[in-house]
Amino acid sequence: MGGDLVVENGAIWAGPQDYWPQGFLAIKDGKISYVGPPEGFQPEAFLGIERLDAGGGLVMPGLINAHCHAAMVLFRGLADDLPLMTWLNEHMFPAEARWVNEEMVELCSLLAAGEMLLSGTTCVGDSYFCAHGAARAFERAGLRAVVAQGIIDFPAPGVTDPDQGIEAARGFVEAWQGKSSLLQPAIFAHSLYTCSPAKLKAVAGLAHELGVPWFTHLAETKSEVTQVKEMHGATPARHLESLGLLESLQAAAHGVWLEDEELRLLADHGVALVHCPESNRKLASGMADVDAWQRAGVTGGLGTDGAASNNDLDMISEMASAALGDKIRNLNPASLSAREAIDMAWAGSARALGLEGVVGRLLPGYAGDAVVLNTDQPHLTPFFDPASTVVYSARGADVRHTVVDGKVLVRDCEVLSFDLNDVMARVRDLARQVAEG
Amino acid sequence: MGGDLVVENGAIWAGPQDYWPQGFLAIKDGKISYVGPPEGFQPEAFLGIERLDAGGGLVMPGLINAHCHAAMVLFRGLADDLPLMTWLNEHMFPAEARWVNEEMVELCSLLAAGEMLLSGTTCVGDSYFCAHGAARAFERAGLRAVVAQGIIDFPAPGVTDPDQGIEAARGFVEAWQGKSSLLQPAIFAHSLYTCSPAKLKAVAGLAHELGVPWFTHLAETKSEVTQVKEMHGATPARHLESLGLLESLQAAAHGVWLEDEELRLLADHGVALVHCPESNRKLASGMADVDAWQRAGVTGGLGTDGAASNNDLDMISEMASAALGDKIRNLNPASLSAREAIDMAWAGSARALGLEGVVGRLLPGYAGDAVVLNTDQPHLTPFFDPASTVVYSARGADVRHTVVDGKVLVRDCEVLSFDLNDVMARVRDLARQVAEG
Repeated sequence: MGGDLVVENGAIWAGPQDYWPQGFLAIKDGKISYVGPPEGFQPEAFLGIERLDAGGGLVMPGLINAHCHAAMVLFRGLADDLPLMTWLNEHMFPAEARWVNEEMVELCSLLAAGEMLLSGTTCVGDSYFCAHGAARAFERAGLRAVVAQGIIDFPAPGVTDPDQGIEAARGFVEAWQGKSSLLQPAIFAHSLYTCSPAKLKAVAGLAHELGVPWFTHLAETKSEVTQVKEMHGATPARHLESLGLLESLQAAAHGVWLEDEELRLLADHGVALVHCPESNRKLASGMADVDAWQRAGVTGGLGTDGAASNNDLDMISEMASAALGDKIRNLNPASLSAREAIDMAWAGSARALGLEGVVGRLLPGYAGDAVVLNTDQPHLTPFFDPASTVVYSARGADVRHTVVDGKVLVRDCEVLSFDLNDVMARVRDLARQVAEG
Repeated sequence: MGGDLVVENGAIWAGPQDYWPQGFLAIKDGKISYVGPPEGFQPEAFLGIERLDAGGGLVMPGLINAHCHAAMVLFRGLADDLPLMTWLNEHMFPAEARWVNEEMVELCSLLAAGEMLLSGTTCVGDSYFCAHGAARAFERAGLRAVVAQGIIDFPAPGVTDPDQGIEAARGFVEAWQGKSSLLQPAIFAHSLYTCSPAKLKAVAGLAHELGVPWFTHLAETKSEVTQVKEMHGATPARHLESLGLLESLQAAAHGVWLEDEELRLLADHGVALVHCPESNRKLASGMADVDAWQRAGVTGGLGTDGAASNNDLDMISEMASAALGDKIRNLNPASLSAREAIDMAWAGSARALGLEGVVGRLLPGYAGDAVVLNTDQPHLTPFFDPASTVVYSARGADVRHTVVDGKVLVRDCEVLSFDLNDVMARVRDLARQVAEG
């Protein structure tokens, strides 16, 4: 059951082009019932309903992190500045093999949920192993989530026999489907170079059978593209198309090294891409050409990827990285404007997660997911334009309140839905063991 | 007269390789007298001295913003996402011509000082017109500063006749030289394409006569390099060398489009470069190759540039942009490590400003300039390594206390040295006039 709430005393930025310097946001049963200027607001319709004081700040749609591996916060800063294969083979894979289990995923996803809520993310598309743990964590935190069980042709945490991966995914989806309006279970095929064509087809088949979305990583690195071409004689998107999988694929993460023909294939099939600029830079994977995505008509969402390769889950800094990155990639300061960048984290991510028309705007009938930024700060002064201020000058710490489904989950920079200090203490204990090897 | 202070109850990160999980920092008369673990600290030597509780956080050298135009915060977000010449000719130059005067520079530099102190910057290298205003602002804020009067072959705010530029700079330097141990006056020749060879020589001559450093912008854009080659038949650094100016030039900002031979010339003459990655991206100027700077032996400092092209003055996000940027530029995740990136903002910037051995480290005899980060936060959890945590996960808002010259200027995220709320209100009033044209 969603919450009832009136957010007052703030500027309202309802979507890229809809801004009122003063206004109200009213939510009933978790859904927006009014958004706009004071003139249209009928206070008598909201008597006795909880009020949230925006304190003169900026009220806007919650940000949507469309690609994350939340539990990897445990490995944040464990190993950096290393060649990719050293980082993966000598640090990440051994650490994951040793430390990832359902309990760890639940604990660490809860830490990630706290970090995301505090920095204005109200909805996450998460994929990892032991997805039951992540689902429990997001449910407890109150975060809206599309949680996908990972599938890979190798022994993985929670699924030691890769042949059991599909059944594990089925079990996960069946356990969570329809359980909460905030949580959508899903499936994540790791990639085209770690999942056989048969496995990819099985994932798509299961997703179709159960009526849930499925996702994958696509063209993140140049060497991955070379490998796919060698193995399958086709570019990554063409390989998916030849398997008949583009019809059902919901979205793919990264898309750094896609050719124009591949972008057209994705656009034709309505497959979205999720841009992860900070992770792509930190791992030196490459810079996706978001301008080319736009020209091809591909929907672009935005995500942080896991904290081991970012190293934070702050969608506000991610938007700035996207906008600045596209300008430098194309040597054009007019590439990917601030408005376009934030809309990647709103409508773009919503569509990438299959939540188009549900989240990403403050509009009547949409979910009551909103954040309030404290704009009374020197780095946000002056305030000429909300897009410029939020994308180029703000940071996650400027988020004062976060609302999901009409419920206040963060008030005055404090998480209300769970004991974040306790979670941090427990993650620190676990990290101490990780550091000791 | 510097302050006396003992910072206690924190981890101490004194320089890239010097970390103690528990320690003390003691400052007498503005200079560091002890830094290190509890075992070496003699409490009886510091009886009755003010204590600053680090609250279990991280104590580290203050960050040094080696290239800034502080007063431009007034134009933060006024115009973005535009082609460079449109941005400059239709927005920045007209706004500067109309609104920049000494009073505006003082007011807006004070806002910038507040923003910088709150995000951990303890020292700034600032260059702009009407530099008296900036100097008064930094003096009032308590920020350490190298303040340079700008010189350009065009009418400029405060100097309508360009022939009077050198005398204006002389007047500025003579008014401020020796006035405060925290403020070093200097001269900034705008660039090689806006200052004639005669003007550049006059700047260097005046700097030599008065014993102050001088600076310039160098090779920020490709078109600037083309223009310098056409006008002077030489690459920018070679042009400076042929004029005999590399002997005296302290540092140059940007250095995006320098050839290897030019880097060798700069290294041979001990000229530092200041990297401004966020501004370079936002204006689509290009990505400097910091790896190449290192190979050539050129000192690299770090700066934010002005807030109109960044759009903040947060050196913590700038370090992340530098490290991530160099990795992607060179497609090598081992390029510019977190440790190297933060040392650009410590020792690199110190040397670029002529303050080597004075700031950039917590070492006995160095200036008592330090910041305390609150690390008890989800996005900084776990904490495996200070460099990774600060560069890849922290943000300016994590700064809790800021100390300059042994004086606490920010305590618990509040600026103590001036009324920041009043300054913000006055900048907003001015910005309203700017917006109304």
